[in-house]
This record gives sequence, structure tokens and C-alpha cells, in this order.
Amino acid sequence: METTPSNRSKRKWEKIELVAGNGLLDRRALLRGGATFAAAMTVYALTSSAAAQPLADDSWSKVPGGLSPAYEKRSRYEEKIVRTLSNPNGEPRTQHARTPHHLINGTFTPNGLHFTINHAGTPDIDPDKHQLVIHGLVKRPLVFTLDTLARYPMVSRMTFVECGGNSAPFFSKEPIQASVQALHGLASCAEWTGVRLSTLLEETGIEPKAKWFVAEGADAPRLSRSVPMTKALDDAMIALYQNGERIMPGNGYPMRLLLPGWEGNMNVKFLRRIQLTETPAMTYYEARTYAPILPGGKAYQFYFLQEVKSFITHPSPGLALKGPGFYEISGVAYSGNGRISKVMVSADGGQSWAQAALQEPVLSKAFTRFRVPWRWDGSPAVLQSRAWDEAGNAQPTRAQIIAARGETTKVPPVTAFPGQHFNGITTWAVEGNGEVKHVYA
Amino acid sequence: METTPSNRSKRKWEKIELVAGNGLLDRRALLRGGATFAAAMTVYALTSSAAAQPLADDSWSKVPGGLSPAYEKRSRYEEKIVRTLSNPNGEPRTQHARTPHHLINGTFTPNGLHFTINHAGTPDIDPDKHQLVIHGLVKRPLVFTLDTLARYPMVSRMTFVECGGNSAPFFSKEPIQASVQALHGLASCAEWTGVRLSTLLEETGIEPKAKWFVAEGADAPRLSRSVPMTKALDDAMIALYQNGERIMPGNGYPMRLLLPGWEGNMNVKFLRRIQLTETPAMTYYEARTYAPILPGGKAYQFYFLQEVKSFITHPSPGLALKGPGFYEISGVAYSGNGRISKVMVSADGGQSWAQAALQEPVLSKAFTRFRVPWRWDGSPAVLQSRAWDEAGNAQPTRAQIIAARGETTKVPPVTAFPGQHFNGITTWAVEGNGEVKHVYA
Repeated sequence: METTPSNRSKRKWEKIELVAGNGLLDRRALLRGGATFAAAMTVYALTSSAAAQPLADDSWSKVPGGLSPAYEKRSRYEEKIVRTLSNPNGEPRTQHARTPHHLINGTFTPNGLHFTINHAGTPDIDPDKHQLVIHGLVKRPLVFTLDTLARYPMVSRMTFVECGGNSAPFFSKEPIQASVQALHGLASCAEWTGVRLSTLLEETGIEPKAKWFVAEGADAPRLSRSVPMTKALDDAMIALYQNGERIMPGNGYPMRLLLPGWEGNMNVKFLRRIQLTETPAMTYYEARTYAPILPGGKAYQFYFLQEVKSFITHPSPGLALKGPGFYEISGVAYSGNGRISKVMVSADGGQSWAQAALQEPVLSKAFTRFRVPWRWDGSPAVLQSRAWDEAGNAQPTRAQIIAARGETTKVPPVTAFPGQHFNGITTWAVEGNGEVKHVYA
Repeated sequence: METTPSNRSKRKWEKIELVAGNGLLDRRALLRGGATFAAAMTVYALTSSAAAQPLADDSWSKVPGGLSPAYEKRSRYEEKIVRTLSNPNGEPRTQHARTPHHLINGTFTPNGLHFTINHAGTPDIDPDKHQLVIHGLVKRPLVFTLDTLARYPMVSRMTFVECGGNSAPFFSKEPIQASVQALHGLASCAEWTGVRLSTLLEETGIEPKAKWFVAEGADAPRLSRSVPMTKALDDAMIALYQNGERIMPGNGYPMRLLLPGWEGNMNVKFLRRIQLTETPAMTYYEARTYAPILPGGKAYQFYFLQEVKSFITHPSPGLALKGPGFYEISGVAYSGNGRISKVMVSADGGQSWAQAALQEPVLSKAFTRFRVPWRWDGSPAVLQSRAWDEAGNAQPTRAQIIAARGETTKVPPVTAFPGQHFNGITTWAVEGNGEVKHVYA
């Protein structure tokens, strides 16, 4: 089944330790050396080293190259790598833009591809005129401009943001055939730099009665959410920079509330007001949009936390395997509870599991890329990943979530599925021809 | 001298511990709470909390916002944040594009603003046609395409790249008045994802005689450099992704050699060939361009390592202080030897020093942002930073470097200064009116 030369390679290849069914290899095999894979790939050998010298020149090696722009842009060959848009014509409804997880790599999301959801488009805010007011149950209400915020002590932290409605298609009775971008594209990870909310609350003082704060954006719907004061005094941040540069317009320019690990829409964008209160405000977005009705009739509300989750990005639907041999299985894992402690990967639908390597540094409430080497023998395989966090939480199965929260039988477009906080195990079936399908298992 | 209200605030402010001369504060003061700064800033107090409700609406809050694009772009208000170009018309000579360190924040450089140097422009490479050949003293010469590389085990790592000629204006006899972008803009930091070179050399095998490899790019000048095999077997990488997306054209699309901590031009871009050899090839770029003559007449050649260094980005020339009061002093520190272990900051030209807070995680061979709180009393101040790395190396003074390597009396444009590997202490003088100047001290 292998395509190229050398019995030497084949022998070394076969020495790699299998640690789980259907070809999963020891994640440490590559660190020990002695593993060769070319025999199972489409690399090709030159007949001799001399054949390489001189190399044939491609056309671009024969002419002077282009001008360096003041702001570097992607190669024209990469312009097809984009977010998918749920409302590309800007009709008067919510616009979703989803991250193409299968077409990027590493541990965080480039700014051009970070997911966004805006309920009335992206406001065009003049940063010199925008202000943040902190008032309500404070001792001294204050107004902050970008210039004043720039003088405060700052912090940087890598953290994911995930929409509560990410992965909603998994509430469907039948597995929806779609890419990982369509299924899990409403989660992204960035380095955010800004001022801790607690630093600003030291300035305003806090009245003892204050138990919540209401954050309000400057977008047309004035999106607002109530947040417990415990988060304000923990790791809440007024974020000003995203991956080194000013926050992108769709992510809240010129400033957003960042609540690491908590539901995306609570990380209020275009932030203009923080009002300290005794009780939650029961705003539109917390009383209706993000408060689905559970099977028993109660509302699923104020759940805040994005729980431990993982999914495989490579391979995944749309990334077909090109013949048997070696592949790396990789994906992202994250938890609103803290660090990822372990990711297990199965190639036989959960019958046996191999521990994945976690890319260092493993950071709290951030994407962690996991990787497992895999030898695909060309027969059908069923890939799953399952993550644990340092608080001891395990990613649940889909069946466990459906039992608690129900499933839906109507089949809307994949981008308009209802359902909140799905963090169950995702399953990709690799078919004999290399195609990858979404299945339930 | 302070501009706004409240004796309460003023009293709390004065309680913060001074740890070095001229207003440097304890880096831990803010973590302990109880520090308020507003009294020394231009934030303004509302007369009462009720005055904030309802907030006046800005124009952008009154209309639906814009369309979410498939690839998010910066706000139009940020388009002035750009790299400076040494050769904006693309004349037939080297093009430098420098990172605006004073206008960004966090620990790494966004892709649009990563520095680039290209000696004959940026080639427009078709990734489906580009190939990497590994040959020479190998057992089995091999050719790799992007498709085959995608199947190999990958790693991600945050690392800086710095041109050997970065900071060359510090070899000038007189301090050049220029921004931190002009002086230190040829260093940037990114997360790179790709395949370890050692993984590919497991495939080709290595002849025992191989002590060096020559890396060659596909740009018009075929930029090539010789690298010791020890680096190949340590942390050298064939980088395919930069900050999550495919490498930018100016940074080597579709693949570059990454030699963490080593001189920028050795990280060969547009990589098309790795040839294992017994001795260095004495290529044009190592025998001439990056081999300046030392005072004693010997060539300064094959120095590889970018040594421990730091500079203050905020404040810095062009970022004037707006009146006395609290400021955060922050900057970046890095070392090709490993992790930064300590950064000290002085506000009195080196007479006394305060230890800066280092933003976690502190990663090997990556930018580390340091921060120190500072109370500026409005009188002249002289700011310096000095870094140490985990190998025990201390950043030298400018005088030490000049003694060993000489200085230059001719005054070319700041972007065309000769000189290599300046890692000495940088000094900014804050004048009474808040302006920041470059000085030697």
C-alpha cells in the first residue's frame, strides 16, 4: 500500500509503537527519533544528490519581486481562506462570521479570521470620541477615554472567546454534513491586552450593595448583559488590543469587555458603559436571546461558563486524506475553567484511546493545540477527541448533553440552528476513499 | 500639579511604595490593590451617577452598522499604523519595512506589521509549484511539496526574528533623533507553526561528514546562508504558518527556515533547498553583507546569536507625556539564549533601578513584555531598561559595545546605518514638557 522506496524506511516505520486501535501512534515517538514516514507519503526521492544541483528555476526566481507594502497582506493564493458569512448582504438581522479552523494552524486565530457576531452590523466608531462611563453603585462615577486608559497598568492574556450558540448543529437529530468551520466556527482565540476592570473599580470605588454590573455596548441595539461582581474583581478586562494591534471593528473596536472563559456575548463589544447594580438587569439578550427553554420548561439562563471542549481540525470534513500512510491528527481544546490537562484521541469510535501531545505553553482559558501521530491503513476509521481540564471536568458525550437538554427535529440551515452550550464529543468518520464525514457515535 | 478631585484618591496614591529614584513604583503595587491613579490623570468625574443615565448617543449608535467582511480589516481610524519603508518606490536595492513598536502592544507582532527585509522584492510564489529539496550529504535526497509537509508532525512556537543590522543607528557618534520604530524596528515576534528540520532529516538520513547545511531561497538573489548542523538537530523548523495563517509573502511565503534566536537573514525565506555540506559555503551574504570589518581588521562573521536585549516602547520618542502623574513604562525584552530572567528599569539614567513585572508566560527566544508603574513629577527624567537572560547574560551598555566594535562618524539616513548586532541599553530622556528624546547616557 505504501508508494515509495526503501525497505530501510519501512522497517523503521513499523517500529513505531502503536498505543491505541486503528493505527494511533505514541505521541512521543517523534521526540525519540528513529521514525521515518516518507515511505508512506508522496514525497519523491531524487535519483542522486547531484540531480539537485543546479535546481531548475521557477518563474518567480528569475525576476525582481514586488514592493513591500506598509501593511503586509496575505499572498493572493491565500485569499480564498475566509470566514463564512451567515448574512452576506447585511439584511436587518444578525451577522455571523465563522473561523475556518481546518485551514489555519497553531494555537490562536489571526485577526482577519477571528469569528464575529453582530446583531446590527459593525459600528464605525471614532476612537477619539468614544468614552467609557462607570457609574451606578460606585463611590465616584468616572468617564474614561482611550487616552486615559492608555496610562493605566496593562495586562496581556491569551484567551478564547466562544459564542454560547457555537456547535448548535449538534442538537440536530441527524448529523449535519458540514465543515468544522460551519459546526464549530464561533470560537476563536487571541492575545488581548488592556486594563483590568478591577483597576478601574479601584478608581471609582464600589458600594457594598453592588453584586452585579451591567455592561452596555455602543452598537445600535446597545447590547447589554449583567455580570456578577465576582468576575469583575477576578479576571475581567477592558481589552484595547487584539493580537498586538487595536481590536478589530467586528470584535468591538475600540474597546470590549473581556470575561475569560465566559459566554461570548457577555464579552460586550464597543463597550460604553459599566453600571454597578444590586441585581441583574434582565436585559433583552439575557432574558430572551440567550435563555433557551429546557425540556422541563425552565429557562436555561445565566450559565456564563464555556465548559471543557475539543474538536479535531485536521483531518475534518473537506480535508480528504490522500491515500493510506502517516497523518498527524490535530485539533484544539479549551475550557472556561482553566488549563487543559489531557486530551485523548480515538481512531476506532471510542473503543480505545491514545493520549495526545499538548503544544506548550498550555495556558488557562486559551486554545491548546493537541496532536497525535496516526498511521492510516486505508480502511474506515472513526476519529474522536475528548478533553479534560485542570478542574477535573471531562468533555461529555453528545448523548449526555441531549439527555439533559433535548434535541431538535426541524432542520434549519446549518448557520441558523438553535441551541446553546454544546460541548460534546465530535466524531469524524474517515471513509475508505479518504473522505471525512460528520457522524454521531 | 494633579488635575482632578478627591483627597481620598490623593492619599491612596501617595501610599504606593517607591522602589527607585524619580518616581518608579513597586511592580506589585497594583496586584495588592489600594492604588488609585485617577487623581493624576485626565479622567473626569460625573457629578452624580444619575448623570450617566441615559447616556448621550453618538452618531454610530443611531444607525445600523456595516457589513462583516469575509476577512476582517482594521478600523479606518487605524490605517495610519504602518511599517516605515526604506525603499517605497521599489528601486533595485534592498527594501526594509520596520515594525511600529510604539503603536502596538502585547507580546507579539501582528502579521501586517512584522518587519521584513527583502533584497530583491517579494517573489510571487505559487504554493502548488514550490518545492523544497534536501540533498548533499544525505543518504537519500528528497523533494517535499506543501502537501507532503502538511502530513508531517508539526510544532508551534512563539519566537522573535531580528535582523543582525537592527539598531545600527546606535553605532553613530551622536544619538540619532528617531522613533523606536526607526531605531529598533527590525525585530518582531510571531507564533510559527511547521515541521522540525530534524524530522525531515530523519527521512533523508545524514552522512557522518555533514557538519553544515546551506539553506537557499527562491527569491531572485537566491539568498543563501550556511548553518551548523547542531542547529538543524536542535530547534530549526520549516515554518509554514505565522500567527495561525500561512506565512506572509514578505516573511517567506510559502515556507521559511526558522532558526529561533539566530540572526534574521539566516532564517532563509522562500526556502527551496537545504544542502548538507562539510564546510560553510561562504555565500555572498555571509562573506560580504553580514560580515563587517572590526576595528582590528578581522571580519565579524558567523556570529549567529541575537543576544539579550530590551528597549522601552511606551513612552518613547513621538509618544509625548501629557502632564505629570501616573504612567506605565513598558517595553519588550528578548534573548537568543533562552528566557528573559529579569528586566530592570531606571528613571534616573541608571543611578537606581526598579525590577519590572514580566508578562506571563515568559517563553524562550520570544518577546517578553515588561511593565513598571511610574509617577512622573513633571521634571526631566532619563529612562532606561536592562535585561538579563536565563543563561546569566546581561544586556551591555552602549559604551561596552562601542569599545569592542567601534562607532561611525558619517551620518547616513537612519534607515541605512551600517553596523551589526547592537544590543546595548537604550536611553530616552523625558523633558519637562513631556517630549521624549533619544540620548546616550
